[in-house]
Amino acid sequence: MDLLAEIGAALPADRVLTDPDVTAALSHDEAEWAPVGKPVAVVRARSAREVAEVVKACHRHRVPVVARGAGTGLSGGANAVDGCVVVALDKMDAVVEVDPVERLAVVQPGVVNDHLRAAVAERGLWYPPDPASSPWSTIGGNVATNAGGVCCVKYGVTRDYVLALEVVTGTGEVVRLGRRTAKGVAGYDLVGLVVGSEGTLGIVTEVTVRLRPLPPAPRTIAGHFASVVDAGAAVRAVAEAGLTPSALELVDRHCLKAVDDWKNMGLAVDAEVLLLGRVDEPGEAGEAAAAAVLACFEGAGATWAARSTDPVEADALFAARRLAYPALERLGPVLTEDVCVPAAAVPEMLARIERTAARRDTLIANIAHAGDGNLHPLLITPRGDEDARVRAQAAFDDIVADALDLGGTVTGEHGVGLLKRGGLAAELSPAVLDMHRAVKAALDPAGILNPGKVIPA
Amino acid sequence: MDLLAEIGAALPADRVLTDPDVTAALSHDEAEWAPVGKPVAVVRARSAREVAEVVKACHRHRVPVVARGAGTGLSGGANAVDGCVVVALDKMDAVVEVDPVERLAVVQPGVVNDHLRAAVAERGLWYPPDPASSPWSTIGGNVATNAGGVCCVKYGVTRDYVLALEVVTGTGEVVRLGRRTAKGVAGYDLVGLVVGSEGTLGIVTEVTVRLRPLPPAPRTIAGHFASVVDAGAAVRAVAEAGLTPSALELVDRHCLKAVDDWKNMGLAVDAEVLLLGRVDEPGEAGEAAAAAVLACFEGAGATWAARSTDPVEADALFAARRLAYPALERLGPVLTEDVCVPAAAVPEMLARIERTAARRDTLIANIAHAGDGNLHPLLITPRGDEDARVRAQAAFDDIVADALDLGGTVTGEHGVGLLKRGGLAAELSPAVLDMHRAVKAALDPAGILNPGKVIPA
Repeated sequence: MDLLAEIGAALPADRVLTDPDVTAALSHDEAEWAPVGKPVAVVRARSAREVAEVVKACHRHRVPVVARGAGTGLSGGANAVDGCVVVALDKMDAVVEVDPVERLAVVQPGVVNDHLRAAVAERGLWYPPDPASSPWSTIGGNVATNAGGVCCVKYGVTRDYVLALEVVTGTGEVVRLGRRTAKGVAGYDLVGLVVGSEGTLGIVTEVTVRLRPLPPAPRTIAGHFASVVDAGAAVRAVAEAGLTPSALELVDRHCLKAVDDWKNMGLAVDAEVLLLGRVDEPGEAGEAAAAAVLACFEGAGATWAARSTDPVEADALFAARRLAYPALERLGPVLTEDVCVPAAAVPEMLARIERTAARRDTLIANIAHAGDGNLHPLLITPRGDEDARVRAQAAFDDIVADALDLGGTVTGEHGVGLLKRGGLAAELSPAVLDMHRAVKAALDPAGILNPGKVIPA
Repeated sequence: MDLLAEIGAALPADRVLTDPDVTAALSHDEAEWAPVGKPVAVVRARSAREVAEVVKACHRHRVPVVARGAGTGLSGGANAVDGCVVVALDKMDAVVEVDPVERLAVVQPGVVNDHLRAAVAERGLWYPPDPASSPWSTIGGNVATNAGGVCCVKYGVTRDYVLALEVVTGTGEVVRLGRRTAKGVAGYDLVGLVVGSEGTLGIVTEVTVRLRPLPPAPRTIAGHFASVVDAGAAVRAVAEAGLTPSALELVDRHCLKAVDDWKNMGLAVDAEVLLLGRVDEPGEAGEAAAAAVLACFEGAGATWAARSTDPVEADALFAARRLAYPALERLGPVLTEDVCVPAAAVPEMLARIERTAARRDTLIANIAHAGDGNLHPLLITPRGDEDARVRAQAAFDDIVADALDLGGTVTGEHGVGLLKRGGLAAELSPAVLDMHRAVKAALDPAGILNPGKVIPA
């Protein structure tokens, strides 16, 4: 029996999509200029058993399997490879359980991040990881990439919140990894290993996440700076002062203008860069922290800085930051960088990005989770301008090289996917890359799970 | 050339110990009744290069290598196997770097936990994981077991604080895993995989840990209870109230009496159980949290409960809790349990432990990181009483079975070592155990790193 006949025999007919227009739309994420293959089918699974049936059939036929959530990734990790089966998990979107006493939730992988946050907020609980894509991206995709976000500077990333996983292995077995208890050291941390593995070690079919109580209402501090380097100096000053903001975001003029042109939010400011800080300590401690952040902004040369007294206005500023990427995408292809450098190196890294923009004649807008050194230079090119594309890709490589030179990493939260495989090879030693290959071969012996992603050839 | 000649040729002579009395003393940890093998030598290494030379020689000769720190483990993870080389890391005890801006420290594995804490406290920083063994245990051992401690209920365990590792692999290569940046997703989480792997996947020769600012001064709440089950109900009430204490420790009468008999601290109280809570929110939020914890204690039937107004007295209570294990050890062999159950199951688990003690005619004292459900029933037997040993081991197995029955794990923080291999086989499915074996074979292809530990045969 051929592969599709086997899958068809095991699953209800409506699960299997083969119309080329439909499968093409489900064959890629949002990474610009990453290669996209042609799948033989997309299977929209409804249960772990269905995913397991697909993987078993693919295992028998040695056909690649590429899992996808909402397709909001930015590194090509969810891009189809030729001849593969894409397993779409967006219909597995149930919040299975919220347990306020153990402070955990159990969800299917297709649950959208903001939906999980809303479901647990009803119980006074909070799921912190908040990628800018949270209105669209799924928990399964967040787990696959170990997604970060705005609040991670204080509260950590997706991996810090995953207690247990149900996973379909490379041989099509359904296994449970991890635990429901607050602590546990029974065996290797296979949960942590699967988180961030971009579908190359298993396909996640259920996620048990740790929750926190909702934090106190934050205080927002906004600052205008004459250059990204000045704003970077303010970020460094916050770190040097020993402060722990719950957000410290950088948005430049290009981003603010693009959001304003799109959403007409009246945000465009007469400054090159907006820096947004938040602190969420309760009571007087919060007042003191906000004053200290404000002093850092002023000391670093802010042209204007103030505590926001209007929560609606403060939320609008963070909403604008969240919309920066889709707003810029409207202008043309945007190649998104994701380097992360030590806090002390943020000003220097931002200065090098400016020089790269000039040298490569490429428009580079900047947004950044500046507080944890995670920068997202956005390389914007006119649609269809092949020379500009080549220059932008050279700038992309320069930025990666500079981040490594400053002791940073090639990817802070978007993942390796296809776009950062070269960067990974530059960052890790050959022996460590071999360890990756050995682990991959151990858990996916047939090499069918998202082949060609993460690990350089 | 034979193995010891090769090692002798590669390392200074003072590194290699072969006197049987000396090697015997360095051949085991503190696990009671775990098998201990006879090593051919103990090598007290001074550098990663020296560790690598030993592993390379052992790899050529297919001789097992067992790493050890201070030997304070409680599961037999550091016990020698026959014919092995023990690599002792206690002389690699330098604090290499403390960076207050990036909030990290770089240390050799032999640094004692409390020494690291003191070194970073000078810079206003804090390394949270605080196992009761912190005055003696080393960071390398803490990493190998993913050690927990008193403050983990709020601040997490060792793995949450390890950013990067230098590791000697099973083939004797020195590799660097992880990063120095706040975030990073470049490749698989090999750091998290090695943490808690008890020396079976690599030997850690340097650790980069994440630090926090020192927390505010805590507020302590003490409660007396007529039974461990009542105290367990108070623990559950704290969880149900949505509180996040920075410590919630249970100490029973047996433990308090043993500490008092030893240290004469004047602690013995007229109660079966002492429950110690701490909160460290600043200012009014801390006042409110302390009052709420106190209300939980009272509501659960405390015979006496109060805020401690004397920090010296409060610290003495926590010091007593820390000394409980060595104090009881003076009375005879102590088999230490380490199960962890969901918060809601704490009262039921404590009730079952009481019934087990009666049924198995075994004295069981209780200390517990109660707030995260991590219980340490201590099974105390008269020295040399073989019947009592058999009964205690049966009780040990009963407790493990009850923890699994209540949705818990067989080990919360001590590790699998030798004592919990059976428990691990009961907790994990055969497919997940196979994943462990595959990962072990991938990273230690010759199977020389601490063989026979963690993974059941």
